[in-house]
Amino acid sequence: MSAYDELMAFNRVTAALGSVAGRTGWDQETVMPPGSSDLRAEEMAALEEVLHARKTDPRIGEWLAAAQPADEVAKASLRHIRRIYDRSVKVPSGLATAIAKHTSKGQGIWAKARAADDFASFAPTLTEMIRLKREEAAALADGGDLYDALLEDYEPGTTGAELQTLFDAMRPRLVALREKILGADAPVGLDHEFDEAGQLALSTTLAKTFGYDLNIGRIDKAVHPFSSGSGTDVRITTRTSLRDPFNCFYSTIHEVGHATYEQNIDRAYELTPLGQGVSMGVHESQSRIYENQLGRSRAFTSWLYGQMRDQFGDFGVADAETFYRIVNRVSSGFIRTEADEVHYNLHIMLRFDLERQLIAGDLEVADLEDAWNTRFEQDFGVAVDKPSNGVLQDVHWSFGLFGYFPTYSLGNVYAGNLHHALRAAVPDLDAQLATGDTSAATGWLKENLQQFGGLREPRETIAKACGFEPTEAPLLDYLDAKFADLYSL
Amino acid sequence: MSAYDELMAFNRVTAALGSVAGRTGWDQETVMPPGSSDLRAEEMAALEEVLHARKTDPRIGEWLAAAQPADEVAKASLRHIRRIYDRSVKVPSGLATAIAKHTSKGQGIWAKARAADDFASFAPTLTEMIRLKREEAAALADGGDLYDALLEDYEPGTTGAELQTLFDAMRPRLVALREKILGADAPVGLDHEFDEAGQLALSTTLAKTFGYDLNIGRIDKAVHPFSSGSGTDVRITTRTSLRDPFNCFYSTIHEVGHATYEQNIDRAYELTPLGQGVSMGVHESQSRIYENQLGRSRAFTSWLYGQMRDQFGDFGVADAETFYRIVNRVSSGFIRTEADEVHYNLHIMLRFDLERQLIAGDLEVADLEDAWNTRFEQDFGVAVDKPSNGVLQDVHWSFGLFGYFPTYSLGNVYAGNLHHALRAAVPDLDAQLATGDTSAATGWLKENLQQFGGLREPRETIAKACGFEPTEAPLLDYLDAKFADLYSL
Repeated sequence: MSAYDELMAFNRVTAALGSVAGRTGWDQETVMPPGSSDLRAEEMAALEEVLHARKTDPRIGEWLAAAQPADEVAKASLRHIRRIYDRSVKVPSGLATAIAKHTSKGQGIWAKARAADDFASFAPTLTEMIRLKREEAAALADGGDLYDALLEDYEPGTTGAELQTLFDAMRPRLVALREKILGADAPVGLDHEFDEAGQLALSTTLAKTFGYDLNIGRIDKAVHPFSSGSGTDVRITTRTSLRDPFNCFYSTIHEVGHATYEQNIDRAYELTPLGQGVSMGVHESQSRIYENQLGRSRAFTSWLYGQMRDQFGDFGVADAETFYRIVNRVSSGFIRTEADEVHYNLHIMLRFDLERQLIAGDLEVADLEDAWNTRFEQDFGVAVDKPSNGVLQDVHWSFGLFGYFPTYSLGNVYAGNLHHALRAAVPDLDAQLATGDTSAATGWLKENLQQFGGLREPRETIAKACGFEPTEAPLLDYLDAKFADLYSL
Repeated sequence: MSAYDELMAFNRVTAALGSVAGRTGWDQETVMPPGSSDLRAEEMAALEEVLHARKTDPRIGEWLAAAQPADEVAKASLRHIRRIYDRSVKVPSGLATAIAKHTSKGQGIWAKARAADDFASFAPTLTEMIRLKREEAAALADGGDLYDALLEDYEPGTTGAELQTLFDAMRPRLVALREKILGADAPVGLDHEFDEAGQLALSTTLAKTFGYDLNIGRIDKAVHPFSSGSGTDVRITTRTSLRDPFNCFYSTIHEVGHATYEQNIDRAYELTPLGQGVSMGVHESQSRIYENQLGRSRAFTSWLYGQMRDQFGDFGVADAETFYRIVNRVSSGFIRTEADEVHYNLHIMLRFDLERQLIAGDLEVADLEDAWNTRFEQDFGVAVDKPSNGVLQDVHWSFGLFGYFPTYSLGNVYAGNLHHALRAAVPDLDAQLATGDTSAATGWLKENLQQFGGLREPRETIAKACGFEPTEAPLLDYLDAKFADLYSL
């Protein structure tokens, strides 16, 4: 066997074990008995021990040095393996263990602090987490920017400075748009109860409508919606809410965006370094275009309105146009995960700026709550009333996920670009969506983006699919047009 | 750290990985999407590769040589680890791989052969399997008996000769009993349809009634009922059959016997070598005493009759005594898994004799079907009509499980002994069972047997619980008395 073949065979077993670890996480969130969590923690730690040993196996360095890539696929595969290997060996194992331990502790402390609305009780844990992550970033950065080093884990090839430029261009237009909208008349919301069985049935219909393949997937209920797995076993979860069926339906469509991306990657890449979505940002572009540009379009909601009438009978909404307005209602809220298309990215920019300062050492945890509240009032025009509606709302920092937040907005920007290209490629898209037919849209995404998995770098993946370099403009133009129309601005 | 502590820490991680592998198997049988089987096969192979490497890690030999056991628990732990290590290193890795590959191929070929009722198409695969298992047995046996070497995997400390003596003592009495019963009037069976939801609801009630802890367990539907896992995550499956709810109920009770054994092991033993049921025979003693001596008793069925009336209304059975007769109906059938208490062990003895001859080289695969059919007619008085009702009915040999079958009957014998001791310890057991209260019985089993896990050797585990050395007599006496009464013999 050549060095390349040996490396790929070794990596394939690692990938298979990683797939098992992912599914063990799925099990934990969906079907695990409540009293099994201590045992599960030991199982996850054992899997991590094995995976870490394999990822830092010195033979990888030797194989990488000797491997001769024969083609584009081999080159891309080596690029992925080299990136992971270089990063794994740079972080001292004692530090990696300390971070893992602190992470598993951190989430519990954060959850308690959030429940008690008491930031001070989480602050020491967060301070220590930032200290550890700065140490990790320093080990990774080779003298470069610390935040960029962390960002590389989620969005390879993108820097904090690039994101800053992007977000600086977006923020004034979004703030202006939200102000105009909130000055206009808002539609009322739903006022009806929607039975759980009906929500789950329609949720499954929606998943299939967006191309989710249940032969290699499944849908379960969980506290948080998520997608898990790659290739031929990709599972999603959803949740229901008696008075808010959109929570269920748009969670499902969002996760189906993630899940079909994984399902649609070229089958030949399964268990290879190319067999997964290429970055968090590109992943989010898929979930977002499914959820928003397609799922919340006037055309698609007109079909969904009929589906909901079929499922639930008269639910107090007179016509499809009113329904469309309710689906896209804009309202100022504290919580990121409940935000509409206009507010969402403002939530992210707030977090991005704060976490970048925390990692740079320019902001102390002691000043974080004030900084959050000041910035929130500035961008959202409302004062945060309690930490659970502010600085304590997201789990990410308690897990040490610094550099993750901006990929959400990058995904939205990428979705805006893909949507622009898709509209040009499929001129009668609305006519199709109005009949519940997403196949041209999802087919275009599969053909031009999803199938390639990790073959290209993230930004290149988007640019190749679109036929142009991505910018913030298509997303902002889309939002301006959509909400000017909806709110008669 | 002492050598003992290092060994135990290493073994704990291996046990946690083994637990993950077990649950991955559970996932495959219950919730895995249908199109995921190729990916799953690679995942299982990757886990096996890791587990095999850990089980044969040469450091185990060094730790074993240096370890100083401090107490009974440590001695028993070392005994288990040494047994597994010695066996793992004796089998050449090429042979282990060949067996693993042939096993994964064998099941598919067997399933096709069974569906086609064509033994000849399975014969070459079985011949090769026997060749491989004989080679494995020779590597393990150190010049000793080949069959004993294989049996050691399922029932450590028991030999084929001992089982032969046991079965020789049982067979004439069982054959005589079945002849007497089949000459008497048989009760008619059920003639009613029982909805699935009702079966599953009552199945869950029964599981709880027998002490199954759903806080550290769960019940799912699967094609085959099984129990999976140890300690704080033990899951069972059951199945339903529209016209035969006993299939569901007694499968559940049987699996609950296995599962509560695992759940009731001293929690301090979790993820240690003592944290699992000690042998297949002892395991089966638990499933069988729950299912038969308790679950099919006149007292318990009188309570179950009421439960079924509550769940399903009038289902055409006039009274509890008739119900008891139907539950315990004896009939001559081809299929082991559907056999009643009288016939079951005759099925096992047939397999035991044939597989022992196959492994000894005294019977060729070419002659196996004839040998099966001849023996079946001898013991059951009926001619086998087709291979799927005969030599092709069980999956075991296609998996290379030689030495597994006799543990079923050994379990029945052990259950007979435990039942004898239990009746002496809990004189008013029937009064309790008649109210659906199994707590004294299951509590006695937990206290005297289940909690000890792997602390004692299998036979010693039974003897300590009973207070006497196990023999075949209590089971046969129980069967004679029960069916003499039921059939007025």
